[in-house]
Amino acid sequence: MITPKTPPGFNELLPKDQIAFNAMVSRIRTAYELSGFTPLETSALELADVLLAKEDGETAKQVYRFTKGDTDYALRFDLTVPLARYAAEHYHELAFPFRRYQIQEVWRAEKPQAGRFRQFYQCDVDIIGTDSVIAEAEVILAARNAYQSLGLKNITFRISHRGIIGGFLADRKLDRLSTDVLRAIDKMDKLSGSEISNELKKAGLSNKDSKDILSLVSIQGTTKEVTKQLSDLGINQSEFNNAIQNLEELGKLLKASGMKPSEYIFDLRIARGFDYYTGVVFEMFLLGNRSSVGSGGRYDNLVSHYSKEKLSGVGASIGLSRLFSVIKEKNTGPSSPAQALIIVFSENLLPYCFEVASLLRDNNINVEIYPGAAKPAKQLSYANKLGIPFVLLCGENEEKKRQVTIKNMKSGKQITASLSSAVKKIKSLVA
Amino acid sequence: MITPKTPPGFNELLPKDQIAFNAMVSRIRTAYELSGFTPLETSALELADVLLAKEDGETAKQVYRFTKGDTDYALRFDLTVPLARYAAEHYHELAFPFRRYQIQEVWRAEKPQAGRFRQFYQCDVDIIGTDSVIAEAEVILAARNAYQSLGLKNITFRISHRGIIGGFLADRKLDRLSTDVLRAIDKMDKLSGSEISNELKKAGLSNKDSKDILSLVSIQGTTKEVTKQLSDLGINQSEFNNAIQNLEELGKLLKASGMKPSEYIFDLRIARGFDYYTGVVFEMFLLGNRSSVGSGGRYDNLVSHYSKEKLSGVGASIGLSRLFSVIKEKNTGPSSPAQALIIVFSENLLPYCFEVASLLRDNNINVEIYPGAAKPAKQLSYANKLGIPFVLLCGENEEKKRQVTIKNMKSGKQITASLSSAVKKIKSLVA
Repeated sequence: MITPKTPPGFNELLPKDQIAFNAMVSRIRTAYELSGFTPLETSALELADVLLAKEDGETAKQVYRFTKGDTDYALRFDLTVPLARYAAEHYHELAFPFRRYQIQEVWRAEKPQAGRFRQFYQCDVDIIGTDSVIAEAEVILAARNAYQSLGLKNITFRISHRGIIGGFLADRKLDRLSTDVLRAIDKMDKLSGSEISNELKKAGLSNKDSKDILSLVSIQGTTKEVTKQLSDLGINQSEFNNAIQNLEELGKLLKASGMKPSEYIFDLRIARGFDYYTGVVFEMFLLGNRSSVGSGGRYDNLVSHYSKEKLSGVGASIGLSRLFSVIKEKNTGPSSPAQALIIVFSENLLPYCFEVASLLRDNNINVEIYPGAAKPAKQLSYANKLGIPFVLLCGENEEKKRQVTIKNMKSGKQITASLSSAVKKIKSLVA
Repeated sequence: MITPKTPPGFNELLPKDQIAFNAMVSRIRTAYELSGFTPLETSALELADVLLAKEDGETAKQVYRFTKGDTDYALRFDLTVPLARYAAEHYHELAFPFRRYQIQEVWRAEKPQAGRFRQFYQCDVDIIGTDSVIAEAEVILAARNAYQSLGLKNITFRISHRGIIGGFLADRKLDRLSTDVLRAIDKMDKLSGSEISNELKKAGLSNKDSKDILSLVSIQGTTKEVTKQLSDLGINQSEFNNAIQNLEELGKLLKASGMKPSEYIFDLRIARGFDYYTGVVFEMFLLGNRSSVGSGGRYDNLVSHYSKEKLSGVGASIGLSRLFSVIKEKNTGPSSPAQALIIVFSENLLPYCFEVASLLRDNNINVEIYPGAAKPAKQLSYANKLGIPFVLLCGENEEKKRQVTIKNMKSGKQITASLSSAVKKIKSLVA
């Protein structure tokens, strides 16, 4: 006998949570398709050379990579690299700008720890092949609609533009420090005041420049507030000015789309550590939650390793596992999709039970026939355990009169209805 | 520059087919949940020792297996073994009888060839933990409803029971030959008459027994026809008699559920090669298609390698890839979920475009804003390429009068509507 278990760091759901997880995914799909994003799935296994074309030590170490036959395989570790590979591979078959969403598992051999898994779902949405700020607005709106469809109304997008810090440094002829400074700013939330000053010093900034940068990134507020404060700095540098203009246009489009002031804040601390972001960057926060539940931004060229074509675009990624942990906590849903369980009293009543089930299923009522003529108490306890809200009694009397007795498992109340009126009755009860 | 490509034998879909594939999966989910089957997902990576507990040479060779750190991993190669592992692992957390469906990818390092992939979707449905024939009927009905929901009305279930041949042989004291004879019968469709006789001889049957078996398995027809012919053989052997009774009961339940005679035929040639089937077995055929699109049956004990508990049950598996190849051929659907594309005439009209998009999205109309103020001809050609049926013109005139012009891409017809009536107009047009 072998002990049945999954590898350490690999998580599976029990039915109750799987049902809630699927409902979450389904709502996100609907929200993204509402904005015309097309679904995409890429292969779990990729050629290692192709998938890791861009990767250096750290990421590569976490990738599940192995050889079988002549092939060197690697398992998908994010959804961005496969998108780049797919877009380059199918460049002539796709219509650009290409907008897609992708909800799939990724695998990373991280150290297993509480809430961290080696297999988890990512949810990405991107528009590639355009420089227009329409893309930023469309991606942010789609992500916002996805959160809203999950009943998460208290989401705030904190938005910035890497050109603000970049332009500010360029204005002082310090553009060479840009990457390190952005990385330091990205860590601000996790560091104390003196630690962040230290980081900026390490990045090569003087005390004065460091102080000025910290004062710059403390700017936050509405479109008007932030653009005014930035203009007041009197910096006349093209990257800086373009960034301000970009944020201003983006703010206008988000406002026109009905986003409330509480839903988006320009916050210049948002820097995003990844080097490939080149313009607008943003992170999404749930009210009362310090760590972000998603993030995104604009990149200059997604496919540089795979193609001579240049494809710039905007993407957002929702941390689906973290999001689900929020939803899971409040999950009081059932462990079965069945809305009603047909109790089987005896074998000879079975044809009637199946007739009733067919009628209800034909009318889109999810119904299960208990698979066996067990004691009724056992069948009722099964319905209870799964959280099935109604049971249907099809006994001899009911069969004779072509009726069905509907019992509400919560209240214990029961009513008997003719077969012809049962569909309507059950529908109004489960509604 | 690295050539972007997937490994040989790994298939990905373009948007048009991905949309059709997702629609197929979504309909199958709905059909299974209609019968109260709960969704399940198991881990892609399993511990090799656990996953391969039962496997001998042939299957094990095809499994993607590798070591990372201290862990010996194997990729999921079917959905039956993970179900057994999951049911044994979570035995005390699940309610039995446990009914679940599972739609996930599996990986097998088969020789790549036309229509055969190393990564493909399986779709399994099982009820475990019951001996009742209700389970057979429920599984068959759920699979039938899944096919019907895809518009595939011409599906026939060919049903048999392994106890017919088993009992027939036992009656002649030849039960030791049962496995080999069933395997030979399973190949009948692929072999000529003399080849199958040879196989039966190799299995150890005399000429007389071989002839009698071939005459036995030629029996097919309705419940009544088959059970009468079998009874007429005058065999009085318990396994044989139980099998007849089982088929008779099953036929009764399928009939009570409204299945038409053309939808299920008892056909004693159906044997299923797998050893783990112990009772009713069946295969599903699409009219005019010689190879089956699915199959299933009853097994005595699913979890024998993982638990002392005994869990018998019934399962059916739909070959999703083969099924999709049928659907794909006729796929004339769009390459985008968008029902309408908003044409962007100029940057300063953007806030109005976003306002219109928000209004439509709030009313569940899938709408995309073209991401850039490209030439209108280019935007129209993009809509054409993606098969988006309507474009919305929000020009200066429209903005001023708070209107939108709706253009049907197929007919070229266009109408202008006030913003307040646009939702209703577009909804009736896309319906």
